[in-house]
Amino acid sequence: MLPERLGPGSPVLAIDVGGTTTKAVALAADGTFGDVVRRATPVVSADGEEIVTLVERLLYDTAPQPRSLIALAVPGIVDERRGIAVRADNLGWRDSPLPELVRRRTGHRAVLLHDVRASGRAEFALGAASGLTDAVIVTIGTGISAALRVQGRDVVRGGYAGELGHVVVEPGGEPCACGNRGCLEAIASGLAIERRYRALSGYTAQGADEVLLRADGGDHHARFVWESALDALATAIAHIDGLLAPQAVVLAGGLAEAGDRLLQPLRERIRSVFPAQRAELRLSPHGRDAGLLGAALGGRAGAEER
Amino acid sequence: MLPERLGPGSPVLAIDVGGTTTKAVALAADGTFGDVVRRATPVVSADGEEIVTLVERLLYDTAPQPRSLIALAVPGIVDERRGIAVRADNLGWRDSPLPELVRRRTGHRAVLLHDVRASGRAEFALGAASGLTDAVIVTIGTGISAALRVQGRDVVRGGYAGELGHVVVEPGGEPCACGNRGCLEAIASGLAIERRYRALSGYTAQGADEVLLRADGGDHHARFVWESALDALATAIAHIDGLLAPQAVVLAGGLAEAGDRLLQPLRERIRSVFPAQRAELRLSPHGRDAGLLGAALGGRAGAEER
Repeated sequence: MLPERLGPGSPVLAIDVGGTTTKAVALAADGTFGDVVRRATPVVSADGEEIVTLVERLLYDTAPQPRSLIALAVPGIVDERRGIAVRADNLGWRDSPLPELVRRRTGHRAVLLHDVRASGRAEFALGAASGLTDAVIVTIGTGISAALRVQGRDVVRGGYAGELGHVVVEPGGEPCACGNRGCLEAIASGLAIERRYRALSGYTAQGADEVLLRADGGDHHARFVWESALDALATAIAHIDGLLAPQAVVLAGGLAEAGDRLLQPLRERIRSVFPAQRAELRLSPHGRDAGLLGAALGGRAGAEER
Repeated sequence: MLPERLGPGSPVLAIDVGGTTTKAVALAADGTFGDVVRRATPVVSADGEEIVTLVERLLYDTAPQPRSLIALAVPGIVDERRGIAVRADNLGWRDSPLPELVRRRTGHRAVLLHDVRASGRAEFALGAASGLTDAVIVTIGTGISAALRVQGRDVVRGGYAGELGHVVVEPGGEPCACGNRGCLEAIASGLAIERRYRALSGYTAQGADEVLLRADGGDHHARFVWESALDALATAIAHIDGLLAPQAVVLAGGLAEAGDRLLQPLRERIRSVFPAQRAELRLSPHGRDAGLLGAALGGRAGAEER
């Protein structure tokens, strides 16, 4: 959920390109948001032109005008400094200079953001990590990745830090979009939960939410899928805690909207795989809109840097 | 191995308290080292007095004199700033102000260091991480833990960062000294390799080295133990890489003395559990003396701060 309003600042168009859906919202100079517009994310070729076309449409489909900048948050490996979308497993671009392409096509200045680092920015500025110097924001949506702040500074490492979705947690397990098997993201992302439940039960659930509802109702396929997702997440979070001992690990993205039904069993599992746990496990108040909010904040920061 | 000599500086007595053996070496003002003295680590009570007695003996058993400071590196959770040895699984102290106790008993000023952060200091100053801004030093000895530098700064977090030895990598697996089961350290430390081989084969090997030799010779128990250690280490290192994407992960401690027989199979396994790996896997040139060297360096830094 987006907050009611932000403070005054530059007007920006924030766009969060997801693995399946792209969301856009206009943030006005007075700090109010327009309506969130959703579009299916297109099939993308290597140069990323389909994204540029989508941005062009979203400029017209959103209100209010004007915009001093377009903030484009995308998944995968992203070089924010150079403005290059390097690659993303579920999307086709390869080393695409998206902000430069958008500027040429639309005349608007654009900045490129990593979606999960954008979510992180939202949590540090206005969410569950507000005021913390050491925290890891784990976004669980179509994919899984993390934004890190260590000793007060964001950890970026050329776009590669926080790419924990493709660490194998079940060797030889579920095939992943990346070509490997048993990756965290192939077991515990919202998409994986939906897909694994379909494979086991033959039934197509409406998202991970429905699988969770069915697990609560005693469906044993749903239960197996949900519990293996919790185990995989607990393993990954225990490794984060063992290594960095952050003040908090914040869960964001669509799956975080499950609230206490995610938080409580996950807390128990983390305690059992790493009793020395230091980090407090928290939920993002922004859920699946954390990336969009982060893009809006990143866009304002970019507009004001000019 | 200790380097031939360091530059000139304060003369210090460096002591590295290990889970089984304590080592000490005097570093002279001209940068030369005396002989390394080894003593069995005593059974320690909560106040840590047995360590103080050991330090007192080591002051007389090492040459050359004089010493402007004693640098004491210990394992477990260590609050270096306040000089408190909080706790260590294999040793009995609880919140012991060891440097203060040493000063009272011997009249020498003392500083307390975390053994693995001391190893890290040695690697960053003179070893495999020299010149790097982002690296993780994984020390594999009686236990397993890590020293981290992120964006040019050491990550300490009150002594809790880098405590990855007790993250469970095999749920329900091997019992660990910490009371849990299947911890990384219960499977992949030098001590664990020795103990697990003994449990399987009934034969008491002389350290992990001999288990490795036996594995090379085709002993299938030894092979199983060694390969499960490699798998567990690969999992932990893949999580480090996925999260932080450091420039290098450096292997230090006794097990690192296995050299390419550790490095090559571990590289292959990491590639298979995290093909996106960014960090270069390197070996410490100091092996089991990294902690002692780090204590010497830390002692000099402490003496010069005065």
